[in-house]
Amino acid sequence: MNYRTVTVKENILIENNEKAAQLRKNLQEKGIFFINVMASPGSGKTTLLVELINRLKDKYNIGVMEADIDGDVDAERIEKLTGVRSIQIHTSGACHLTAQMVEDAVKEFNIDGLNLLILENVGNLVCPAEFDTGSHLNMMLLSVPEGHDKPLKYPLMFQISQITVITKIDTLPIFHFDTNLCKEYIHRRNPNAEIYEVSALKKQGLDELINAIEKRINL
Amino acid sequence: MNYRTVTVKENILIENNEKAAQLRKNLQEKGIFFINVMASPGSGKTTLLVELINRLKDKYNIGVMEADIDGDVDAERIEKLTGVRSIQIHTSGACHLTAQMVEDAVKEFNIDGLNLLILENVGNLVCPAEFDTGSHLNMMLLSVPEGHDKPLKYPLMFQISQITVITKIDTLPIFHFDTNLCKEYIHRRNPNAEIYEVSALKKQGLDELINAIEKRINL
Repeated sequence: MNYRTVTVKENILIENNEKAAQLRKNLQEKGIFFINVMASPGSGKTTLLVELINRLKDKYNIGVMEADIDGDVDAERIEKLTGVRSIQIHTSGACHLTAQMVEDAVKEFNIDGLNLLILENVGNLVCPAEFDTGSHLNMMLLSVPEGHDKPLKYPLMFQISQITVITKIDTLPIFHFDTNLCKEYIHRRNPNAEIYEVSALKKQGLDELINAIEKRINL
Repeated sequence: MNYRTVTVKENILIENNEKAAQLRKNLQEKGIFFINVMASPGSGKTTLLVELINRLKDKYNIGVMEADIDGDVDAERIEKLTGVRSIQIHTSGACHLTAQMVEDAVKEFNIDGLNLLILENVGNLVCPAEFDTGSHLNMMLLSVPEGHDKPLKYPLMFQISQITVITKIDTLPIFHFDTNLCKEYIHRRNPNAEIYEVSALKKQGLDELINAIEKRINL
């Protein structure tokens, strides 16, 4: 990457950080807690969100924003399986959402009356880590089939996520995944990271994760 | 993404395409076939490459470039498990390699005498699809645990890959992965895509994939 490219990128990131800080403040003033969920493609984001939303929807007014390069399957799936309102955001080819894109979506979505807003970011361990979305909580998922070495390779994502969820733990018997080593790698990137182990399919570990999320909502 | 950002990006892509075309031609004139391997994080790129290289290394002089945001584990692993020469390229946070970065690495690597150059791109289904690396063959991997819907969500990656490899097929019994539907989705994006099904762990489907790669090397 040449010097010109890096400079342009830095300017974009500075602008984005300012926009994100403003959005975070605005949402907080409206009593809306905003969670940004990030992970690789196919790590189980949508499946986990369905389980979490179904356990939280009686207590909170929830809205979901589903970001994807293309396709509408996730927003439809969330609405069908949880009944909560959901919109699909297309990134026009981009590998992440900017705070501006979130703000535009929030305006279109009409968030009055919501108190919990959840964004499922583009499936990607790199770019979404660089772009602050204005969220109050960054939660990332790492699925067992991806391997325990990922915190070494995608450091920024693990560094900026207050909560890391190890997903698909029901598949631990068939993959070479060292949970303790993975936790050690995560804590190298972020000593304060809270780590939860879940299987959305087998409904394991969901209560602990929900407690952790609610503790942050109520802060 | 605002208009200014898009314009800057388009200029970068045009410059990159020109550089990539030149690099592709230069490598061809030197008798070097260049394969760009792309996939999500944790889809089994390195594991598959070890198997492929060990089956090809007596016939070809192979060099491997391992691209990552951070870490040196992959290059070390390739060298240790195959004995072929390998270098690690760090992208300084970027989610893809540009043709310029490949050219710089090629210069440092000293490719004289090689006839097969393999690049393991950054684990990502978005950005590497946009940046032509100068390769003669784009090969992408989709692992069974990621799910059969990925061609709907990451269309460009499937569109630009002449070969798609469905990996970790030994885990088909435990995941909801519809292989036929997946192939249909891939062919919607790229009607000419060749699709191979492999398990590097169980050594399944490797011969067919190697035949397909060799057919392209010998064209």
